Amino acid sequence: MQIENKSPGKDVTEDDLKTKFPLAARQKPGHRSRFTVAGVEFGGDLIPVFAGPNMVESEELIVTTAIAVKERGAHFLRGGAFKPLTFPYRSASYRETREQGIEWLKTAKREAGIPIITEVMEERYLDLVCEVADILQIGSRNMQNYPLLTAAARTGKPIMLKRHFGCSLRDWLGAAEYLLVENNPRVILCERGIVAPHTHRASSRFLMDLQAVPAARELTHLPIACDPSHATFWRPWVAPMALASVAAGADAIMVEVHPDPQNAAVDPLQPIDFDAFAGLMTSMHRVAGAVGRHILQENPS
Amino acid sequence: MQIENKSPGKDVTEDDLKTKFPLAARQKPGHRSRFTVAGVEFGGDLIPVFAGPNMVESEELIVTTAIAVKERGAHFLRGGAFKPLTFPYRSASYRETREQGIEWLKTAKREAGIPIITEVMEERYLDLVCEVADILQIGSRNMQNYPLLTAAARTGKPIMLKRHFGCSLRDWLGAAEYLLVENNPRVILCERGIVAPHTHRASSRFLMDLQAVPAARELTHLPIACDPSHATFWRPWVAPMALASVAAGADAIMVEVHPDPQNAAVDPLQPIDFDAFAGLMTSMHRVAGAVGRHILQENPS
Amino acid sequence: MQIENKSPGKDVTEDDLKTKFPLAARQKPGHRSRFTVAGVEFGGDLIPVFAGPNMVESEELIVTTAIAVKERGAHFLRGGAFKPLTFPYRSASYRETREQGIEWLKTAKREAGIPIITEVMEERYLDLVCEVADILQIGSRNMQNYPLLTAAARTGKPIMLKRHFGCSLRDWLGAAEYLLVENNPRVILCERGIVAPHTHRASSRFLMDLQAVPAARELTHLPIACDPSHATFWRPWVAPMALASVAAGADAIMVEVHPDPQNAAVDPLQPIDFDAFAGLMTSMHRVAGAVGRHILQENPS
Amino acid sequence: MQIENKSPGKDVTEDDLKTKFPLAARQKPGHRSRFTVAGVEFGGDLIPVFAGPNMVESEELIVTTAIAVKERGAHFLRGGAFKPLTFPYRSASYRETREQGIEWLKTAKREAGIPIITEVMEERYLDLVCEVADILQIGSRNMQNYPLLTAAARTGKPIMLKRHFGCSLRDWLGAAEYLLVENNPRVILCERGIVAPHTHRASSRFLMDLQAVPAARELTHLPIACDPSHATFWRPWVAPMALASVAAGADAIMVEVHPDPQNAAVDPLQPIDFDAFAGLMTSMHRVAGAVGRHILQENPS
Repeated sequence: MQIENKSPGKDVTEDDLKTKFPLAARQKPGHRSRFTVAGVEFGGDLIPVFAGPNMVESEELIVTTAIAVKERGAHFLRGGAFKPLTFPYRSASYRETREQGIEWLKTAKREAGIPIITEVMEERYLDLVCEVADILQIGSRNMQNYPLLTAAARTGKPIMLKRHFGCSLRDWLGAAEYLLVENNPRVILCERGIVAPHTHRASSRFLMDLQAVPAARELTHLPIACDPSHATFWRPWVAPMALASVAAGADAIMVEVHPDPQNAAVDPLQPIDFDAFAGLMTSMHRVAGAVGRHILQENPS
Repeated sequence: MQIENKSPGKDVTEDDLKTKFPLAARQKPGHRSRFTVAGVEFGGDLIPVFAGPNMVESEELIVTTAIAVKERGAHFLRGGAFKPLTFPYRSASYRETREQGIEWLKTAKREAGIPIITEVMEERYLDLVCEVADILQIGSRNMQNYPLLTAAARTGKPIMLKRHFGCSLRDWLGAAEYLLVENNPRVILCERGIVAPHTHRASSRFLMDLQAVPAARELTHLPIACDPSHATFWRPWVAPMALASVAAGADAIMVEVHPDPQNAAVDPLQPIDFDAFAGLMTSMHRVAGAVGRHILQENPS
Repeated sequence: MQIENKSPGKDVTEDDLKTKFPLAARQKPGHRSRFTVAGVEFGGDLIPVFAGPNMVESEELIVTTAIAVKERGAHFLRGGAFKPLTFPYRSASYRETREQGIEWLKTAKREAGIPIITEVMEERYLDLVCEVADILQIGSRNMQNYPLLTAAARTGKPIMLKRHFGCSLRDWLGAAEYLLVENNPRVILCERGIVAPHTHRASSRFLMDLQAVPAARELTHLPIACDPSHATFWRPWVAPMALASVAAGADAIMVEVHPDPQNAAVDPLQPIDFDAFAGLMTSMHRVAGAVGRHILQENPS
Repeated sequence: MQIENKSPGKDVTEDDLKTKFPLAARQKPGHRSRFTVAGVEFGGDLIPVFAGPNMVESEELIVTTAIAVKERGAHFLRGGAFKPLTFPYRSASYRETREQGIEWLKTAKREAGIPIITEVMEERYLDLVCEVADILQIGSRNMQNYPLLTAAARTGKPIMLKRHFGCSLRDWLGAAEYLLVENNPRVILCERGIVAPHTHRASSRFLMDLQAVPAARELTHLPIACDPSHATFWRPWVAPMALASVAAGADAIMVEVHPDPQNAAVDPLQPIDFDAFAGLMTSMHRVAGAVGRHILQENPS
């Protein structure tokens, strides 16, 4: 009877650390990358926050939101001018704004004085997206689009690599290695929910995998972000899971914020409004303090 | 084409709340049960902690541990004299101590002055277990052993119902209803890890489902405990997931503590030692404070 | 960095075969148990079929069905007088018939001349159930109710052990070992659907794991049955998955048959009627023939 | 309490059929697309077989295999000159042969007189791949690479769309709609294994989802292929799962065949050799006959 075999499975082995993703692998306990993007440090005591709408719907929306989240302590504005849509048909509200959206992001960046993280989906738009992006986001559906990873890494821009909802840590670190091997060390991982037997609501498709935070920490020195908005897909769960992410050791938090969540062009069940965001920043800062880290510049009242 | 149907599925519906588990169902936002067990309040600002070994291996072990965890702030001693074992063969170390174990628990309770939570697996041992238990634990493998649930509920003892690793919130609340319908209102739910596509280590069988905390909160007024030890099955992940549980809104924490973890009779990869437990209590208390709750009597230094 | 460890995980190891379930483990390729129950051979070329309603609703229902499925080639009548129900409240139609149901099964057995497979849920009813059962069924929710397994095995009756929907093959074979260690060699395993990220309908809770058939075959000599009715929970998928089970190498098939499926007391979405069953028997027999096995006595036209 | 909501979840709704993928949706029971590729009909009684190595390793390998599988009844040669690799480092054996591989495929096609199915991963190589491909394969990792889907569909070539291992039927049919909306009706779906809690071997990462065959049949008129080699990742399970696929109603079968499986450049645990393939073709043809379909031209002995 032959049961064991040498073939790679679901879990990371010692050999993987040495031969499959040596650049992503942690060299020893406590080894953690630190780097700075737009003056904001990643991998240290600060837990940077990325906030903003799912899609760059209009100039007014994105500028208003940029100013609001900046005032409330966010370190980066998030928002997509490009976004994969599960079905090919578009309504007026549910569409990518593409070149126009990139222009609006530039305006928001300038008006609010906040750096930008935004998604790139195709190599052909890489130059355009790089005009405004301080961090390039690779979305979960493109995590294993290796030609895109290579091209994005070669721009030299910092990259946030979202974990695919069906992928293991082994797959994720393999994808990160495609970035690092291009001599681009500023890579941030981002957990955003996985497929699982139970996701708790008819509308929720993903389960937030917070266990991945300590598990990935054990394997890699790269900063690990969490996106509770896409993971939970349900507004009331965003705050508890954001706080839990901070407590579990996340190095950055991405949260979807919209001035009028019910009327968001996509996924209106998940964004929080400006007031909720302000409250969440205060709460996250308190939890961060409890684990020896911080989010806001000053102590909240 | 007929797609929708009336049959129950994986997720909770409005109708379930009214007809399937009306006693477990939350009546309105903010509705939360509060009750007291052995002078410790559940469902309020305090987050009680259950600590101790997986199995009651010896009198010395359980008495020593009872005193140690009590000193470090634990509210209840946990430890099983009865425990389901996946395979029928027993080594000397890996066995249930049963009647003897119950006696040792009595000694520990008396010597340390700490209440007890311990598992019951069979109706025939219910009277015996009730001699020492302040809270009866129904293990995950018995979550849907309805005759056992009914018999346990009829003792009037408070019951902690662990979620089965393959069960939905709907199944879990259905099982809780079997307890409540016997006029036993002191029911605590406990999340302890579920089966999932990725559990991150070859030895880990479960993924901690912290999303279940806000999701169950939305449906039920019952207190929700978390057991990061059994969920993660890996010592280094216990502390981050315990802290995350507190931040996510857990109402109680169960954690496995052993004076000599590497030599624990079962599951030696998961318990933490007394020093680690002391540190964890302090950290959990800090996180609890950040979300308006508390664990220890006084503030930690 | 320490990654590998000796602790048991999700998958079966060589050591498990030797020390955890040596009686259930296959001794060499091709090793397969053969035994006879009520004159019907298991583990050989014949693929016995268990057919009947989910619950023994009434005497008329069970007698009529017994005669009908016997005429169409079924080898055993299935039907539960005891059945775990997810919620504690009962309607007139949705209830266990218990002692009365056992009497009705006796009538059906006598009138139709067909052996019986039926579930036992509690040790206290074991003698009663044994009065009529030729095979005791342990339901999936009781797969790890080890005291029940031990008591059932000691009756000497053949036992069909359904796989729990959250359990691995390792857990399942461990449970089977609890039966075998009591010197009861007539054990049949039964796959009946597992929890999985995608189950394809809002009402479907399980995914049929047909890969478990060749996978379990690799590990054990015990016959492996499949229950496509409970696995799919959806009538139109029962026939294709029953045929696929036969082609994958299943050693027995359990299928839910009801004279009036839409009005079945429980789970009305899954049973097939007598005509559909007749057609399915012919189709299964053809597929069985294609893989060198058979179901019916004579060749279908 | 608000539980239900209008937001899309995991499962297909009536509305999805009408507005999200009206072209992929089945119009009524029994509605099934039929079309011909290189003289081979899809969607009818014939079940075409795609056979060949995972990667086009060398000219000799691919020509030899093309002749061998053609002689044994395969309808198409499969083999990748482009293939996503989970890690960026390449050994001599484990590499894409790209332009050279395409040339070798041309030779194999000419020498063996067999049409070709091969993967395309990037728009930039689409023209090159189309020089030899009779069917373009979109791999599972690119299932939601919508720009690639659109570009591939515009070539007018038939396309086989592999299901992503983390995606629902809803996501899959949404991706198919991206192809159909470009007026390319010759689309084949292919199930190739999904992530699941239990995959049965330390080396197996996927669980074959055969339930998806009847489930997808209920929703779409498109032919549904199955790939038991990639699904099981384990040679001994390929034949039983291929036979089960045919019995479940699959419209095409993809199977990995290599002259020297143990020395295959990638995934050496999964291919079968020429003799095993010959036996499998005979067995599959027999099972096909049992469900009213066929694979080989003549009856096997």
